[in-house]
Amino acid sequence: MTASRGAWITLEGGDGSGKTTQANVLADWLEQSGRTVVRTREPGGSEVGTLIREIVLHHRGDIAPRAEALLYAADRAHHVETVVRPALARGEVVLQDRYLDSSVAYQGAGRVLDPAEVRDLSLWAAEGALPDLTVLLDLDPAAARTRLDSADKPFDRLEAEQAEFHERVREAYLDLAAAEPERFLVLDAAQQPEAIAERIRARVAELLD
Amino acid sequence: MTASRGAWITLEGGDGSGKTTQANVLADWLEQSGRTVVRTREPGGSEVGTLIREIVLHHRGDIAPRAEALLYAADRAHHVETVVRPALARGEVVLQDRYLDSSVAYQGAGRVLDPAEVRDLSLWAAEGALPDLTVLLDLDPAAARTRLDSADKPFDRLEAEQAEFHERVREAYLDLAAAEPERFLVLDAAQQPEAIAERIRARVAELLD
Repeated sequence: MTASRGAWITLEGGDGSGKTTQANVLADWLEQSGRTVVRTREPGGSEVGTLIREIVLHHRGDIAPRAEALLYAADRAHHVETVVRPALARGEVVLQDRYLDSSVAYQGAGRVLDPAEVRDLSLWAAEGALPDLTVLLDLDPAAARTRLDSADKPFDRLEAEQAEFHERVREAYLDLAAAEPERFLVLDAAQQPEAIAERIRARVAELLD
Repeated sequence: MTASRGAWITLEGGDGSGKTTQANVLADWLEQSGRTVVRTREPGGSEVGTLIREIVLHHRGDIAPRAEALLYAADRAHHVETVVRPALARGEVVLQDRYLDSSVAYQGAGRVLDPAEVRDLSLWAAEGALPDLTVLLDLDPAAARTRLDSADKPFDRLEAEQAEFHERVREAYLDLAAAEPERFLVLDAAQQPEAIAERIRARVAELLD
């Protein structure tokens, strides 16, 4: 493998789908192959971004939905311009936890904002930049829950609402992947981690070749 | 004057054009007329906004231009939803230092972003909300400088660039006012403050009548 060109890989999926584990394994393999890897994330992948992340994730009290979407987009604009583009220009591999697909899937699932508008906002922020590869670790929230639940105790209303929300996030992710099959690699996150890692390595090797 | 309906008045103009003086005089008059006045500003007119203002105005180091525009828009979205709309719904008069015209004039004058895109972004943030009246305190920066300069010492390059920037801001403001003559009241800020206040009062009385 030569370090002739940079590559931008994003990882998407619900919490607990194994993004961090897969990023760790992939980064190790890339570095052993002689590539320089930049591990980053959104929100909070830049200095300005950590300040924005602090507002979005830790502010006590509600933030207006459009304000929240705009804060994520601001983080994205600064991150892409000051972290992602320079690393790609240096020929490095950017391995990123969450990008615009997260915004579209989560904000869309929240049913307040139009997913197409959220996507347009993100694309304006990033001047249209899209990753070379997006790995979606797809996990059926119902199956995951069934697997984890020790007993068959019934759901309360909040748990049921949360389950519905996560199901909508999952469907939104799958719709995004279906719309851009060349950019997305969709993997069943219920598989063994090593089997998933193998599939990711194969696709990344092809991308970098 | 009855308190039957709210009104939203914004003040625009360069620094030193007298916005604060006029807002003070107008607020006193409105309160003496029995109106409840909410004095506010952008950026920083809400609790979330003060955190955003801190990033935009006091962060050490550059912020990507699109990130900056998105942060101003996030502040705007939260401010309009949590401060402006509720006050108008209570029938109060919102008197606001700077709104979207500032973003369009200043970002446009910076010549990095397209003013029409900056305006669209602000309108998306605010769900299209526009003030009932925008008072533009128009001041010729060259005339102001000539008046203030004690001697005829020549400009250095930075001063000349700054003067050009402020001239572009002024022109952008005048273009915005020309495009929406019903919303804007353009006043020559070189006049005596009391003469300006009288013109503003006349227009506001008409608006609230």
